[in-house]
Amino acid sequence: MSQMTPVDLMIEARWVVPVEPHAVVLEDHAVVVQHDRIVALLPIAEARTAYAPRELVQLSEHVLIPGLINSHTHNPMTLLRGLADDLPLMVWLQQHIWPAEAKVIGPEFVRDGVELAVAEMLRGGTTCANENYFFPDVIGATYRKLGFRAVVGLPVIDFPTAWAKSQDEYFERAGEVHDSFIGDALISTAFAPHAPYTVSDESFERIRMLSDQLDIPVHLHTHETAHEIEEEKKKSGLRPFQRLQKLGLVNDRLIAVHMTQVTDGEIAACASAGVSVVHCPESNLKLASGFCPAEKFRLAGVNLAIGTDGCASNNDLDMFGEMRTAAQLAKAVAQDAAAFDAASALRAATLNGARAIGLEAKIGSIEVGKQADLAAIRLSDLETQPLFHVLSQLVYACGRHQVSDVWIAGRRKLAARELIGIDTAAMLGRTRAWRERIAES
Amino acid sequence: MSQMTPVDLMIEARWVVPVEPHAVVLEDHAVVVQHDRIVALLPIAEARTAYAPRELVQLSEHVLIPGLINSHTHNPMTLLRGLADDLPLMVWLQQHIWPAEAKVIGPEFVRDGVELAVAEMLRGGTTCANENYFFPDVIGATYRKLGFRAVVGLPVIDFPTAWAKSQDEYFERAGEVHDSFIGDALISTAFAPHAPYTVSDESFERIRMLSDQLDIPVHLHTHETAHEIEEEKKKSGLRPFQRLQKLGLVNDRLIAVHMTQVTDGEIAACASAGVSVVHCPESNLKLASGFCPAEKFRLAGVNLAIGTDGCASNNDLDMFGEMRTAAQLAKAVAQDAAAFDAASALRAATLNGARAIGLEAKIGSIEVGKQADLAAIRLSDLETQPLFHVLSQLVYACGRHQVSDVWIAGRRKLAARELIGIDTAAMLGRTRAWRERIAES
Repeated sequence: MSQMTPVDLMIEARWVVPVEPHAVVLEDHAVVVQHDRIVALLPIAEARTAYAPRELVQLSEHVLIPGLINSHTHNPMTLLRGLADDLPLMVWLQQHIWPAEAKVIGPEFVRDGVELAVAEMLRGGTTCANENYFFPDVIGATYRKLGFRAVVGLPVIDFPTAWAKSQDEYFERAGEVHDSFIGDALISTAFAPHAPYTVSDESFERIRMLSDQLDIPVHLHTHETAHEIEEEKKKSGLRPFQRLQKLGLVNDRLIAVHMTQVTDGEIAACASAGVSVVHCPESNLKLASGFCPAEKFRLAGVNLAIGTDGCASNNDLDMFGEMRTAAQLAKAVAQDAAAFDAASALRAATLNGARAIGLEAKIGSIEVGKQADLAAIRLSDLETQPLFHVLSQLVYACGRHQVSDVWIAGRRKLAARELIGIDTAAMLGRTRAWRERIAES
Repeated sequence: MSQMTPVDLMIEARWVVPVEPHAVVLEDHAVVVQHDRIVALLPIAEARTAYAPRELVQLSEHVLIPGLINSHTHNPMTLLRGLADDLPLMVWLQQHIWPAEAKVIGPEFVRDGVELAVAEMLRGGTTCANENYFFPDVIGATYRKLGFRAVVGLPVIDFPTAWAKSQDEYFERAGEVHDSFIGDALISTAFAPHAPYTVSDESFERIRMLSDQLDIPVHLHTHETAHEIEEEKKKSGLRPFQRLQKLGLVNDRLIAVHMTQVTDGEIAACASAGVSVVHCPESNLKLASGFCPAEKFRLAGVNLAIGTDGCASNNDLDMFGEMRTAAQLAKAVAQDAAAFDAASALRAATLNGARAIGLEAKIGSIEVGKQADLAAIRLSDLETQPLFHVLSQLVYACGRHQVSDVWIAGRRKLAARELIGIDTAAMLGRTRAWRERIAES
């Protein structure tokens, strides 16, 4: 009789969708985890004869997928959820969001907003966030404390904020925050220049140089609205994307968020340069920004990921909703019901996200050697019955409340819908206190 | 001391959104119900001194709204949920949906599909369906048995089906089904000619005459795709809407479903004739049918309702998701972030639906004298915190799983998420049996 290998964890699932290989649905498979890593993916029957797990989790009505990756969000703003809706963009920003932020922004606000966001993300199967907000030191520390994986944006913007007063101070603080997370198991960094219309050529040149030196991505809002393109053309005579090309930023470190206004030439340039595009369909709809041609990007071979954007605009961190909207909207925009299928939507929300943030060797699929970032979804609810195709059901019928269990780096973060390591009552108490303070203003 | 009036039910809610008056949020109000009707809506403190309810329900973290009205659906097709996705429209219909239907269609399929749909609708706060499928006799009987409100479509289509073999038979059976539900408390009828491209002038003329005589609506797919308009122009030289005008069908009985391809003149004609338009945004996106200009319809004063369409295309009966998609998409299509606000989305999903199906005197708002069709939504979940604006939260952040309680005609149908009067295990067993039979084909 062969020796059983002792391991930390074995998850037996009715279905496993590893994402890589593409569009595959495995039946009755087990994922075997040692410490923070996946060490095997094999049929349950074989797994039972080969491994002696310290912990066995059996999910007989569930599909196990890689944890979802939210590739663009501003999570401290979760505390501003629904503060101001149904308003023209500039009224929303100038009369509501900025004044509210000015009143509350600081380490405590950022910490409490991230905690609320982590709770929401875990309950929705998300295990990694590409974060973009001020106080990245506090943001990173909060994610680390909560055991949540994140890429923390290092803000650069051409005016003083609560985070930094001058260009030099933005870069100085960026360097400090970056250094403080070197070697961290869960936290990495990216430059986060706000947008072409708020960042100077000089700053972009410094970012270009430093992102090469530090080997980190550049996370940038760009081509979100037609207005922004017209303004740039008035100023520099170039479209923002052309200006970025001139500055050397259009390369495989660039995470270009939104891209609702693009030419075929710009799509081709993204493909050949290895740019990642983050599609935020619900934010683009709700702010009337425009329609990102997601299927054109996909067909051109561009790495297309998905983000929710912040809760002040969207108003949730629901990657299931975002996958569905992305898939549905892409079909209408492409005028082709076969466009952007369910498997492509799930891939965009997992492996493509990992690639965008430079973590494709580590996360984004259920493969041996990768981190055990996993989400289990219960498909036995009547809303997902009858069940003909697991991938269709995941993208087109499933709600995020069907997520039952979540692991990050092999550690259980959600167990049968219960958050582990978060005191929900205390967190909601703090959330209500922020609400009172913000509503007063 | 004044006499307390005995009543059947009093529901005390943290918030009540009556829908009429528009955009109002009442705090700490009670809805008082006697038999099937709302007899009072007043502050909790006053209600407690005036009424002695047989049953008191206290919902301290909830908002009470009129039950949602799904204004276009094919609920027996819930059993085909996710059978075939991501396919071109004609491949989907001709190679998947029609062959599957041909194999299973009949009274049992219709009955079991409606039961599954009712369970899903109740768990999502929907209390009325505008139904459109074959075997309306069985459909109506099933809704009646389950205590669910529905308008049952009387099918007319220019080819033989399992329901009828000839035009005369369609009309004969329509008359019988209509007569069988006269005076029913929950079930009414509408003519449901399939679409301009499958119904002859002669049939439309009969429908016109009979709908006037019987005083019932005409529920019709129209202008769903650009293709359908081109085909009609080739055949009759008219756009389908022009042909309907010529036939006298463009009037306040018409429920025009989809309307993704419309001229400004057609929008104005809908407004002046009192046509109701049913917007099915997710179906239109997923089938790449096009974009209904919802905000244009609204601004023109057209009565705009919302439907999910059937689960074979959408793939759910989630009116919360549909409201949100409608509001978000309308903004992008109108290029105006202030378009189609949350209150308008909720109104479209309630009172406008009631008006479309001819029941605006009976349902669609929380008003004294109307039927007690109500849904309570728990807003204390962390996904709907912090809470600044109840209407925003309902439309932009809430998931249907936050629906806690539902009443139809004063009878509790969902209590703290438990379905009343439906044997869920038995129903899911039948659902699995249908899945096996359909998957074999």
